[in-house]
Amino acid sequence: MSGPDEFELIAALASRLDPAEDGLGIGDDAAAWSPTPGALVVATTDMLVEGVHFRLDWTSPRDLGWKSLAVNLSDLAAMGATPGRALISVALLPGQTRLVEEMYEGLSELARLTGTRVVGGDTVRTSGPLVVNVALIGEAAPDRLLRRDCAMPGELLVLTGEVGASAAGLALLLEGDRDRIDQPEAALLLAAHRRPTPRLAAGQAIAAMSLRCAIDVSDGVASEAGHLAVASGVAITLDIDRLPLHPSAVALFGEAEARRLALSGGEDYELLFTVPEGRLAEVTGALGGEVRATVVGRVVGLRPGGRVDLLAEGRVVESGQPGYVAF
Amino acid sequence: MSGPDEFELIAALASRLDPAEDGLGIGDDAAAWSPTPGALVVATTDMLVEGVHFRLDWTSPRDLGWKSLAVNLSDLAAMGATPGRALISVALLPGQTRLVEEMYEGLSELARLTGTRVVGGDTVRTSGPLVVNVALIGEAAPDRLLRRDCAMPGELLVLTGEVGASAAGLALLLEGDRDRIDQPEAALLLAAHRRPTPRLAAGQAIAAMSLRCAIDVSDGVASEAGHLAVASGVAITLDIDRLPLHPSAVALFGEAEARRLALSGGEDYELLFTVPEGRLAEVTGALGGEVRATVVGRVVGLRPGGRVDLLAEGRVVESGQPGYVAF
Repeated sequence: MSGPDEFELIAALASRLDPAEDGLGIGDDAAAWSPTPGALVVATTDMLVEGVHFRLDWTSPRDLGWKSLAVNLSDLAAMGATPGRALISVALLPGQTRLVEEMYEGLSELARLTGTRVVGGDTVRTSGPLVVNVALIGEAAPDRLLRRDCAMPGELLVLTGEVGASAAGLALLLEGDRDRIDQPEAALLLAAHRRPTPRLAAGQAIAAMSLRCAIDVSDGVASEAGHLAVASGVAITLDIDRLPLHPSAVALFGEAEARRLALSGGEDYELLFTVPEGRLAEVTGALGGEVRATVVGRVVGLRPGGRVDLLAEGRVVESGQPGYVAF
Repeated sequence: MSGPDEFELIAALASRLDPAEDGLGIGDDAAAWSPTPGALVVATTDMLVEGVHFRLDWTSPRDLGWKSLAVNLSDLAAMGATPGRALISVALLPGQTRLVEEMYEGLSELARLTGTRVVGGDTVRTSGPLVVNVALIGEAAPDRLLRRDCAMPGELLVLTGEVGASAAGLALLLEGDRDRIDQPEAALLLAAHRRPTPRLAAGQAIAAMSLRCAIDVSDGVASEAGHLAVASGVAITLDIDRLPLHPSAVALFGEAEARRLALSGGEDYELLFTVPEGRLAEVTGALGGEVRATVVGRVVGLRPGGRVDLLAEGRVVESGQPGYVAF
């Protein structure tokens, strides 16, 4: 897009955002700001494509805006970082200007709640599906950065919150059964899918306790445990009986299916992290005010290349090298 | 994209990049690094869409990779900033894996030349046109940031390099006349369109001389003069006889058409900046080793809302409020 159309859309979008209190805002060639002295810069990006990551008949523009920022905030949460400045790029069809304005309103809502400032972006035309890219830049203390590659044998694997809700919400939409979608239990599952809550406070609390190893659950608990195992070169056992399944997912889909959704469905945006066994009470206590924390497994040894074994009733029911075995 | 496909593509792409010497690289939830103490963080993003910003029958994947980074580097150049870390997002069709790998090679080539490190990104599936988004994060000294909003009456308007080449290259491609495209003069124009050179050294030199006001020419000299005029609230005269037209553009299209291409065609990625009249010799001297600098106009007064008058042979030939009049 270029010319008056682009300037008008940029002005319309800018009016939906809070002005940045410092630095240069929307309108210059780039945004600029002073980082906190001594802090690390932490940056991530995620691209969402219509028809692949969302459907406009299932997701409102406001929810799309919320989610496109939320998935990036979840990456920062998994690093123990704080938001943040965001750069928003959107490729839209000529008729989607109003839709993109509404998307910005939803994005701005979550930005306000999390202290994120939108400082720039790009709006361009496309002939194809709507594409939203968010690049998010936050900060972390150098000695408190959470990583994937430092899980240690003997540590416990701990999960925040409850899982399976987002995948169950998506399953309801895929079924398209209005009777089930209209049940009261369904509303929570749809909300979990459409407006995930990034665990920023939990991530910062985990980092503040000098724990070192965390990842966010964007892709199913089994898959994320696999990423930890590969990056850290360890073998992990995941006790699938102990997964904190979302009660509405269990109510509508049954326990076995809810567990499957949690393991491989993904998009819960909870945090999976490791805790030395002797510090468990301290950690769950410290997180207690913020979020439930559940032990779901254990790092059982070093294992170059990584390995995850799923345990049920204490016995291995599935295992393999992450990334090669489909859980 | 997710699963083994995504992991394999990420590994293939990572192998085409230089490893970051510090901080966390590709593979964690986010990239992290220590900024230079006291420096500002400077961030920009640009999205390129197939069929809108490029055509794969006119642009090789390597050139596309180069250009997608170059347009962002040009934004940093216009701020007087240094690169930089880049986050690359790509939405691709299933059959485009090899194409995207080649695109990364071209991007990596320019990254190496400019000291840019690719520290993260996202690769996703699409059903539509190829989309490339680059978010680029650099640094600048707080007292040396170049901006659009500080042009002052009495200052001269100065342009680096030569203009009209990129738009002339695009015009050759649009014509599709093989005889003209095969002329030796055409090669330089096509190269200017496909592999623009961001003026990073010139931008840093301008900032080092404590000049304050600059913009990059991504959208035609007249349009960019308009952005300066609007942001600074000034009236600018642009002396179109004095534009440093690229000689190959003049040779193939004639002077009048070359001038039109330079004014409204855009994508030259030169810098347009302002210089107090008494400092002109100093500035052109200091830039001399790097790039030609040509006076192309003057800031003639304060003007809320901005105004640009185009002068030819000393007379106004076109004028208006930028953003509303099509030059």
